[in-house]
Amino acid sequence: MTKWVYSFGGGQAEGNTAMKNLLGGKGANLAEMASLGLPVPPGFTLSTDVCTSFYDNGNKYPDKLSAQTNDGLKTIEKITGKLFGSNSNPLLLSVRSGARASMPGMMDTVLNLGLNDETVEGLAKLSGDRRFALDSYRRFITMYSDVVLGVHHHTFEDILEIYKDSQGCNLDTELSADDWAIIIDKYKTAVARELGYQFPQDPMKQLQGAIDAVFGSWMNERAVVYRRLNSIPAAWGTAVNVQAMVFGNMGDTSATGVAFTRNPSNGEKSYYGEYLINAQGEDVVAGIRTPQSLTKVARLEMGEESLSMEEAFPEVFAELSETFETLENHYKDMQDIEFTVERGKLWLLQTRSGKRTAKAAFKIAVDMALSGQISSDDALLRIDPLSLDQLLHPTLDPNAKRDLLTMGLPASPGAAIGEVVFDSDEAEELKKAGKKVILVRTETSPEDIHGMHAAEAIITARGGMTSHAAVVARGMGRPCVSGAGDIRIDYEAKEFSVMNRVVKRGDTLTIDGATGQVFFGLVDMMQPELSGDFSKIMNWADTARTLKIRANAETPLDVTTAKDFGAEGIGLCRTEHMFFEEHRLAHFREMILSSNKIGRQDALEKILPVQREDFATIFRIMEGRPCTIRLLDPPLHEFLPHTEDDIASVAKSLGLPKKELMLRSRELAETNPMLGHRGCRLGISYPEIYEMQARAIFEAQIIVEGEIGKKPNAEIMIPLVSSPEELEILCNTIKKLADKIGAKNYSIGTMIELPRAALLAGEIAHHAEFFSFGTNDLTQTTYGLSRDDAGKFLPDYVRAGIIEKDPFVTLDQDGVGQLINIAVLKGRKTRSDIKLGICGEHGGDPSSIEFCHNLGLDYVSCSPYRVPIARLAAAQAAILSKRA
Amino acid sequence: MTKWVYSFGGGQAEGNTAMKNLLGGKGANLAEMASLGLPVPPGFTLSTDVCTSFYDNGNKYPDKLSAQTNDGLKTIEKITGKLFGSNSNPLLLSVRSGARASMPGMMDTVLNLGLNDETVEGLAKLSGDRRFALDSYRRFITMYSDVVLGVHHHTFEDILEIYKDSQGCNLDTELSADDWAIIIDKYKTAVARELGYQFPQDPMKQLQGAIDAVFGSWMNERAVVYRRLNSIPAAWGTAVNVQAMVFGNMGDTSATGVAFTRNPSNGEKSYYGEYLINAQGEDVVAGIRTPQSLTKVARLEMGEESLSMEEAFPEVFAELSETFETLENHYKDMQDIEFTVERGKLWLLQTRSGKRTAKAAFKIAVDMALSGQISSDDALLRIDPLSLDQLLHPTLDPNAKRDLLTMGLPASPGAAIGEVVFDSDEAEELKKAGKKVILVRTETSPEDIHGMHAAEAIITARGGMTSHAAVVARGMGRPCVSGAGDIRIDYEAKEFSVMNRVVKRGDTLTIDGATGQVFFGLVDMMQPELSGDFSKIMNWADTARTLKIRANAETPLDVTTAKDFGAEGIGLCRTEHMFFEEHRLAHFREMILSSNKIGRQDALEKILPVQREDFATIFRIMEGRPCTIRLLDPPLHEFLPHTEDDIASVAKSLGLPKKELMLRSRELAETNPMLGHRGCRLGISYPEIYEMQARAIFEAQIIVEGEIGKKPNAEIMIPLVSSPEELEILCNTIKKLADKIGAKNYSIGTMIELPRAALLAGEIAHHAEFFSFGTNDLTQTTYGLSRDDAGKFLPDYVRAGIIEKDPFVTLDQDGVGQLINIAVLKGRKTRSDIKLGICGEHGGDPSSIEFCHNLGLDYVSCSPYRVPIARLAAAQAAILSKRA
Repeated sequence: MTKWVYSFGGGQAEGNTAMKNLLGGKGANLAEMASLGLPVPPGFTLSTDVCTSFYDNGNKYPDKLSAQTNDGLKTIEKITGKLFGSNSNPLLLSVRSGARASMPGMMDTVLNLGLNDETVEGLAKLSGDRRFALDSYRRFITMYSDVVLGVHHHTFEDILEIYKDSQGCNLDTELSADDWAIIIDKYKTAVARELGYQFPQDPMKQLQGAIDAVFGSWMNERAVVYRRLNSIPAAWGTAVNVQAMVFGNMGDTSATGVAFTRNPSNGEKSYYGEYLINAQGEDVVAGIRTPQSLTKVARLEMGEESLSMEEAFPEVFAELSETFETLENHYKDMQDIEFTVERGKLWLLQTRSGKRTAKAAFKIAVDMALSGQISSDDALLRIDPLSLDQLLHPTLDPNAKRDLLTMGLPASPGAAIGEVVFDSDEAEELKKAGKKVILVRTETSPEDIHGMHAAEAIITARGGMTSHAAVVARGMGRPCVSGAGDIRIDYEAKEFSVMNRVVKRGDTLTIDGATGQVFFGLVDMMQPELSGDFSKIMNWADTARTLKIRANAETPLDVTTAKDFGAEGIGLCRTEHMFFEEHRLAHFREMILSSNKIGRQDALEKILPVQREDFATIFRIMEGRPCTIRLLDPPLHEFLPHTEDDIASVAKSLGLPKKELMLRSRELAETNPMLGHRGCRLGISYPEIYEMQARAIFEAQIIVEGEIGKKPNAEIMIPLVSSPEELEILCNTIKKLADKIGAKNYSIGTMIELPRAALLAGEIAHHAEFFSFGTNDLTQTTYGLSRDDAGKFLPDYVRAGIIEKDPFVTLDQDGVGQLINIAVLKGRKTRSDIKLGICGEHGGDPSSIEFCHNLGLDYVSCSPYRVPIARLAAAQAAILSKRA
Repeated sequence: MTKWVYSFGGGQAEGNTAMKNLLGGKGANLAEMASLGLPVPPGFTLSTDVCTSFYDNGNKYPDKLSAQTNDGLKTIEKITGKLFGSNSNPLLLSVRSGARASMPGMMDTVLNLGLNDETVEGLAKLSGDRRFALDSYRRFITMYSDVVLGVHHHTFEDILEIYKDSQGCNLDTELSADDWAIIIDKYKTAVARELGYQFPQDPMKQLQGAIDAVFGSWMNERAVVYRRLNSIPAAWGTAVNVQAMVFGNMGDTSATGVAFTRNPSNGEKSYYGEYLINAQGEDVVAGIRTPQSLTKVARLEMGEESLSMEEAFPEVFAELSETFETLENHYKDMQDIEFTVERGKLWLLQTRSGKRTAKAAFKIAVDMALSGQISSDDALLRIDPLSLDQLLHPTLDPNAKRDLLTMGLPASPGAAIGEVVFDSDEAEELKKAGKKVILVRTETSPEDIHGMHAAEAIITARGGMTSHAAVVARGMGRPCVSGAGDIRIDYEAKEFSVMNRVVKRGDTLTIDGATGQVFFGLVDMMQPELSGDFSKIMNWADTARTLKIRANAETPLDVTTAKDFGAEGIGLCRTEHMFFEEHRLAHFREMILSSNKIGRQDALEKILPVQREDFATIFRIMEGRPCTIRLLDPPLHEFLPHTEDDIASVAKSLGLPKKELMLRSRELAETNPMLGHRGCRLGISYPEIYEMQARAIFEAQIIVEGEIGKKPNAEIMIPLVSSPEELEILCNTIKKLADKIGAKNYSIGTMIELPRAALLAGEIAHHAEFFSFGTNDLTQTTYGLSRDDAGKFLPDYVRAGIIEKDPFVTLDQDGVGQLINIAVLKGRKTRSDIKLGICGEHGGDPSSIEFCHNLGLDYVSCSPYRVPIARLAAAQAAILSKRA
């Protein structure tokens, strides 16, 4: 019989931390903590298989689920000694989602479940605090009605505000138990009016409703968007955790908080967190009240007056500290813990690996490796390669002039400059229009995800370091300042004020997410200086990896950046980028517009010296490292002017009739330029172009060898080959030229970027000394999908669940990967020592890099800023495959 | 040691007819005839390997070639008793090309080789005819200078004309031996002046020069064009035949001629041919003098006065007749024979399978099979499936009004209508501009091939049934009237006159190639009536083949035509063609322009009844045969107006602001529409479109089943699938609809037209009951080659020898074929009874059909007119694979 429900609590559990895929992160860790003997409120987990089965079977639950849920409930009752639905000794439950990957704030939670008009009186007696019981009941009605029944929480907030006004009260704390009783009646009336039926009083019905809502929330729109942005497959599903309630809001001996076992911002080994006295857990995460520090040191550093937990709850804090050590030693990683203190007793609600900045990740991994807690391989595996993006971002120049506007919390590191915008939709639009924006909000909610994604940085007026804005921004690698409490936003007027200054929509701000500072106007930024931890990790990575890392670069700046970031060669030098520079563009256009070979040769003759110097510069910087130079690739049409005005001015400068230029331009236009006259097809039609380029390469080699005494290593790459004959012809031409010039230190190879090239790789390898997989074009042709056009309908595909990950970001291993595999096998069969690499966008994507490692490619090539990411990802791939 | 040279003659030979690939058609058959004891002038063949080796090794001959050539020469000298270069008893040679496939007039020939200032005197003594010897020498100088030395023959013609004028002569026959001696001097002086060196006197140098020229002619431009048009690979190479000269021009007991053992026009068993008294062989083929009939019957039929060969040379004709029987019985096929009579002695210069019209091919094959000479399988193999195109062309309606302009020879059957054009380049241009043209020339030459290809039909004023125009037109399946001697063409004025009528460029003519009639203006045409031979062959083909043949059709006319031609089902019904009809186009545009689903559904609701009736019509015609209906495929942009004017008028008729229409049109435009939002991607984005189409299919099935009592068999085909998930989602939608409507007699499948679909065919087959290979798109994506754009640079590829055959005409078995093979294997592994077919243009191409047969596909689908071709090609594939 399939087991759908797993119990935990009372020092034992049916699950454990290894069952994360089945129980979700929260459920697996609750089970593990229970087994470790830690104080976890007893409960049970409905597995992710329930979710998957539910959606696979037309929204129907498995048959045995109901019986197993009842068993789980009985186990809780046995451990707590309370009864679910009992009027005298009522058991209350929390119902929380818990997916395999953390999705903060994305899905639904219901607390205090089991309360009704009768059990609330039992709770009042049991707790000896009728006000608390009624407060819990009204919270439950609000939360349950909002999450499960679909009654907007504004309904309840309005009733409460009106009542408070009628009583002349300002704060909830001023309301008595009797007030809450009146409000509860009003709440229930409102629910019945809106829904046409009474708020459910049957606790079992309440439970079923909450479970339905959590599973349902897996497919709500904000969860779908979050998964898309974070590459989480819909098929993973969520688990549901049902747990006995504990109360952080039972008076001043109760509290609730979140804590990290190390500082998630910089990685230092000091407890780090926040707590709120007399509050329920969600109050901290929601960022509505500004919480207090956990430790005395932190309180002093922040200059806060209200006591730290260390001071206010010394005994519980000591127990908590001990728990921190237990958990970190057990999991061998920094933990992010949620806890509640109910009348002086500590309860643990959750533990998980804590999210951290890239800087912290490096420090924690290095510290743990150096202290011997983990191996250097483990340290490498602990760092998400993509998080390196954060470390490599620019910071503010310390010497730059600045105009400090205000300060908030350093919620997510990095500096950014942008125009102020107050609305997420607007942020997205401006981003599309090519603007850089900073999103300024009182607080953010899951509805703002797309705006946060579009923004360079986020500023919030409210909320702490663990608020929605902070957590999401860190995850995205966006700089964020949260809780900048001086800011007053007027959404209507599209402006905000700080003290007496007014900042309008469109004004430029600069923020430093590492310090929490917000500046008016533009502050100069500088390149990041990388810490010693960074170079330690990179050294370990270089030792562990077997894949070489190259960069896609052609400008002197990019080539230098690439080398500085550790690129071991150039994997893709796009020579056409060189033609777009203004004064050679004229010559290149002259070449295109020539009606015969002699005219073309004359024009190319003028480009030769500049192109030669381009290559010489690259060879000088790369000092003998291999440089793969791709000969001209794009269709000639791209080089001609397209607007009426441009055509007129170009015609004038070339001394051509405008009509002739338009004619030639129209002649060159193509229905499907991606599949048109480009790549080596140009080399076949106009051999003189490739001859000029090859000549420039060979002559540059000779010049630079004379200068630096090292032999520049040129790999000449022919693009868009679809048949062995094309390559053979072009190779012969280039080789003849090399012989004439006396060039020796070069090889000739090809891109494999068309399915036919992959299928005929065996024959092509007779002429190619290397293959470089051009996975951008290979993805386009394998899928029959234009990257320029796919944007219009791929969202439909994501919505329909057809595509999990954008195949232009992460390599489609099922389809494109098959072709690469075929090409690798056939290529090696013909030429056992053929050099193999990849130079599409995928060369900087960690999971694609793992695929390349497993195929035994020689190198990946990516954009310069991605080189460190690739070095780390390649190391991880090597370690994982060694372990497998 | 490699053997490069093969001798023949004197009743024996080193080669035979089976060695056609090595010796070329001519060389192999000369060897075979020599072995049969037939009178063949002795000679030797330089093999096609010499040609291949020459071009593969940078235009260098194999080392041993020279010695072997000398040995061959000695053998000829031994058999003839003459000596090459001897002044007293000179051996003269002919040097002719001879490739594996016949390429009439494409390559070079040199006759009378070995003559110089001294040997010419020997020939004079030997023949006793000094005038003949000098005439031969001047012919040799002209031919050799033109072909080998590159001096244009106009040079010699001018000298001759000027001399004749100076002597007051009109005809060559009026010139004496002394006149020829003077002219020869003038010729030699002209050559020396133009080239800077003397005309070569050394016979061995002459021989080497001629051999070089023939091998060189393999790569001349007109040969390259001919090969491209006739799908002959360059790698085949040509052989060179060196043979002792025999003379048909040694006076009135000498003659030369060509003959067919049956009538190549209608296939009847009667000798058929032409001869010229006192002429060299090339005079007949060149069509300069109008030749006489071979038989008396033919002479009487044509109303000729000059004696037939049967009457003029009764003894030689008897020997020739016997030879005809020997050769036809030996080769078991109609033979095309060249012969020469030298002073009463018969010599055979060539035999080969005779080219024939499709009608003749059917008659000959059927006659030979019925007489037991060959099997019915052999009869099927004898017919080139592509030649059927001729049979299926329309003929003139016998009752139509007509205005007879003139008559010529019925050189190639079929009727055609077109505008008069006098120039081949112009013919090609007008064809490109979409016009139908008839090319009118005094005579044609190999330089006119492209114009003949572009024309609907060809008319020549001079030349016989075996003239260049006739032979080439028959090969191309173009109707042709040759030797329409009344026509006088004025190329300058761009007009021709017949009697007193003038026809100008651009006037319309109609021709009937089967009767030789030329009509002024347009004459009504009618569908071809197929002969009993045709249906016999088709019946034999249907028995032999295992592949089913379907048609690509959707209009009632096309569907009916397809059924009449024997289509066993519809393999591709393109539903979008139905939307282009004017009144539904408006509704379809309304659908496209709707901003929401409800608007789209409203518009589709209006299209539903028409679409349903479309399908009902097809089901009625096909009477239960399977009909594969492809759901909407092209991008929506194609349905919107594109020009300013069209946009304005459509906007008005839809009651939309013009600006909105332009905006939506721009929004839908794509960079690479081939790779854009089309095919099943539309079905994912707008499920309501496919739902409407499926509903129309199911409802039409129910209607037609009620009418005809047979269950219409619908195969619903989803286009452009790239992942199993797409198909799964769309299948589910359609199946649900079918259940609702109660449809049962249907299956759902997919096009395999993207590389990814082929690679994931195993997973896709879980949801597909059939695969139809869409080889058009699969070729585009596999090659990364847009069919719309490739035309611009494919000629460069053909010139460079990279592409032998247009991959959009003949399936690329190396690349695309691999993907099809992968998909077939994977598809069958998942679903052993999966139905497999092909519906690209390749479905009507014989070699692609053979590929499909060998893969074991169930059917091919092609355009209606190609159905008989496909039936025959499928039979041939079955027979060949059975024999292999």
